[in-house]
Amino acid sequence: MRVNLNADMGESFGMYRMGDDDGLLSIVGSANVACGFHGGDPMVMRRTIALARENGVSIGAHPSFPDLVGFGRRFMAMAPKDLEATLLYQLAALEGMARVEEHAMTHVKPHGALNNAACEDADLAGVIARSVALFDKELILLAPALSELEKAGRAAGLKVGIEVFADRAYTESGSLVPRSQPDAMVEGGEASLAHVTAMLDAGGLVTRAGKVLPTEIHSICVHGDGVHAVAAARALRNGLKARGATLAPLDRILA
Amino acid sequence: MRVNLNADMGESFGMYRMGDDDGLLSIVGSANVACGFHGGDPMVMRRTIALARENGVSIGAHPSFPDLVGFGRRFMAMAPKDLEATLLYQLAALEGMARVEEHAMTHVKPHGALNNAACEDADLAGVIARSVALFDKELILLAPALSELEKAGRAAGLKVGIEVFADRAYTESGSLVPRSQPDAMVEGGEASLAHVTAMLDAGGLVTRAGKVLPTEIHSICVHGDGVHAVAAARALRNGLKARGATLAPLDRILA
Amino acid sequence: MRVNLNADMGESFGMYRMGDDDGLLSIVGSANVACGFHGGDPMVMRRTIALARENGVSIGAHPSFPDLVGFGRRFMAMAPKDLEATLLYQLAALEGMARVEEHAMTHVKPHGALNNAACEDADLAGVIARSVALFDKELILLAPALSELEKAGRAAGLKVGIEVFADRAYTESGSLVPRSQPDAMVEGGEASLAHVTAMLDAGGLVTRAGKVLPTEIHSICVHGDGVHAVAAARALRNGLKARGATLAPLDRILA
Amino acid sequence: MRVNLNADMGESFGMYRMGDDDGLLSIVGSANVACGFHGGDPMVMRRTIALARENGVSIGAHPSFPDLVGFGRRFMAMAPKDLEATLLYQLAALEGMARVEEHAMTHVKPHGALNNAACEDADLAGVIARSVALFDKELILLAPALSELEKAGRAAGLKVGIEVFADRAYTESGSLVPRSQPDAMVEGGEASLAHVTAMLDAGGLVTRAGKVLPTEIHSICVHGDGVHAVAAARALRNGLKARGATLAPLDRILA
Repeated sequence: MRVNLNADMGESFGMYRMGDDDGLLSIVGSANVACGFHGGDPMVMRRTIALARENGVSIGAHPSFPDLVGFGRRFMAMAPKDLEATLLYQLAALEGMARVEEHAMTHVKPHGALNNAACEDADLAGVIARSVALFDKELILLAPALSELEKAGRAAGLKVGIEVFADRAYTESGSLVPRSQPDAMVEGGEASLAHVTAMLDAGGLVTRAGKVLPTEIHSICVHGDGVHAVAAARALRNGLKARGATLAPLDRILA
Repeated sequence: MRVNLNADMGESFGMYRMGDDDGLLSIVGSANVACGFHGGDPMVMRRTIALARENGVSIGAHPSFPDLVGFGRRFMAMAPKDLEATLLYQLAALEGMARVEEHAMTHVKPHGALNNAACEDADLAGVIARSVALFDKELILLAPALSELEKAGRAAGLKVGIEVFADRAYTESGSLVPRSQPDAMVEGGEASLAHVTAMLDAGGLVTRAGKVLPTEIHSICVHGDGVHAVAAARALRNGLKARGATLAPLDRILA
Repeated sequence: MRVNLNADMGESFGMYRMGDDDGLLSIVGSANVACGFHGGDPMVMRRTIALARENGVSIGAHPSFPDLVGFGRRFMAMAPKDLEATLLYQLAALEGMARVEEHAMTHVKPHGALNNAACEDADLAGVIARSVALFDKELILLAPALSELEKAGRAAGLKVGIEVFADRAYTESGSLVPRSQPDAMVEGGEASLAHVTAMLDAGGLVTRAGKVLPTEIHSICVHGDGVHAVAAARALRNGLKARGATLAPLDRILA
Repeated sequence: MRVNLNADMGESFGMYRMGDDDGLLSIVGSANVACGFHGGDPMVMRRTIALARENGVSIGAHPSFPDLVGFGRRFMAMAPKDLEATLLYQLAALEGMARVEEHAMTHVKPHGALNNAACEDADLAGVIARSVALFDKELILLAPALSELEKAGRAAGLKVGIEVFADRAYTESGSLVPRSQPDAMVEGGEASLAHVTAMLDAGGLVTRAGKVLPTEIHSICVHGDGVHAVAAARALRNGLKARGATLAPLDRILA
């Protein structure tokens, strides 16, 4: 069994620190690197790329709505042409900086409200997927399992990396249980490991009610912000390895 | 005699219009395209690249200090590492978007206060030139004649395009006469043509006092903001052609 | 008959010019002044306030979603507490600068997508109205006729200035005909004057089908961006005066 | 002996946390509140004002160059008129929000590179002091001892609060020892207390060489960013109280 761990990184900005990138770099196989529109700045991006390369971590762009003060977590009603150009700009910025640092951008994962909306909205998902394909047809689109974004990625001819969340429960339709509900989060390293291995073993999302929604699973999303986040991610990685899983960068999983 | 005309373009931002890009595109051979830090936004950049390609106009990055409200015209004391990353980001953004639009970024010209400071400050000029070389050693650095930026470009191993200004008078040391002085500007199409042809014929800058400061001249900078700017640029181009000059994109001049 | 003309102003930003503020200042009685979040900057705000005072034009804040590149024309899903603070900041900035320039901020009119959304969304309208009342209970909320914003303003205990648009047609329910439809705009000075006087005479909105939707009308919104905008506004003002109307600043209309 | 402790606060931005405001609020008498140009946002400002009021901490504006990514620590060459408007905007935003929160803005302390430059540059200091006086002649300008900013504040007719730094050594001319030098910092709570009490007892700055440069001292600047910063500030406060000092908000010290 081969699987990838991915995490958002490079979300610090200027003097402001966000997340424990150094802690995560020894755990995950792939990093989603902020491109300056919700977090990240040129210095942070460059350092993040260099550290990822040194740690053998593959990188992808983590583009966002242009909303620094909202950290990209607020939906913005952008015209498709504006969104397309905004995504191309962010992808280009990261790709070129990666080249300077002798690393390669191999995937794209939309950030925050953009990602959330693209899971439900086929039109928006289509704009994103076609923008990625327009930039580079070889890029992997990292998309939540069973989302509109997954479908749009396939329709655009992209390789699609399917991700599940280690710390989030799924509804019967395969969407994330909203954080406003009491059982939205899968708390702690052991529970996360059990949640993830159940899904990997079943070959699908396992819902709250225990139903299996079949899907490929290429990657598991972990987080670095929060007191116990890095420890939980490490426990998950160690648990997966102990169960015989091979962890690899996303581009090797989908090679 | 072969020479290039260059102009700043793509400096509009969102709903805000700046300059007459459409007017200039049929006149100049090369466009310095804003990268979003003093002007320009992803939509404007994409449109400017596409129009330049359609008009056979070569493009370069026109990176700036990060100062939108000041239009990049105010000096900012940036640490060398910050400036380097900030430049790489802007170059990468334009280069990647140009690729999408099937055009090529072939030169770099710093904008505004960054360019002005780099003409005098060898350290700053060195940071800029090395950043450009780090991004792509084949890029042309477009630099004012006899400036520190020209020297730094050569020291970094770059091809350097030497530019003169059609509408600005030169001091005896080869710097631009400050705008605060009454004879700073060369006004009108005829006077500009005479100024430029005198320099091309002399093989150097011609100062206010009529002294010649020898230099190569590859490009002439014209402007598109101002009521008569495009007309003056067109008169200059027509006058140069009438005198037998061949106008070409910058990358062909320096090929 | 007493009525106010209002227009958006102070939407220039840095080197970027927007609208013909100087042209409008001799025509309108009240200016909605951008506060730096969709347009406007501290220099522009200060100059706009000073010119308004010199011309006897009353001023109001024209706060927006924080979206400079989108000119505040894109809906953003802001949490109520975030929106409230964002509005208070903008109102405070304008109010304090007005005091320095010995003028007074007497009304508030939301800008762009914020205003549009507040016409339909009672919750959003409530957040806006309560924010204005929290800042200063004496402020006038300038709201489109028959909108949720009008209702929210009254519920918050504010004086509400009711505005109609000189250049837009109304649907049978009292909303603006979307710009995507062919008869959305009332084009030209004469047609605008006829449209406005019909509404003032009828004491209500006059729909495309000629139905009258009764409403108070305190103010008529005119625009300064567009080739003929200022001329059309002047024609409207002159036509209203010729018909015996008294034009006055908004705060006098509602005194 | 009465003295004030002041600290910079409200420098968080969106999702980004900066400093330990909650820790400092029980220690200092006065807070310099960021206004959104180097840090702070409307939500953060509002919360900071409310917490300061609840803790009996007086507040002042902490305006900056417009440089979020540089945290206001980079000099920007702003034209005096631009700087003046930029300062008025920030002062107005904080003052108005303070009013909403039933607190009062009673002082102003420039931030970062703006403050540093104003200590040496009489022209810049004059622009700042006159901007503050233009906004409200009753405001206290909080300025480093023996700085050009102190002089400019007096020349503008302002009350000037004179501050010393608990954790910085002074040169023989009264400026701060640059951080690049080994003995720039006064490390630890005990050393800081000794440094501060020596200056309060001597009635002046005490230089590295032990020379006394006479000056009034109204306030001591402490910091909240850094692992031991809040503990050091608390130790300083407790030590001063143990020595019989009365700690008070800045506006009471200068009443």
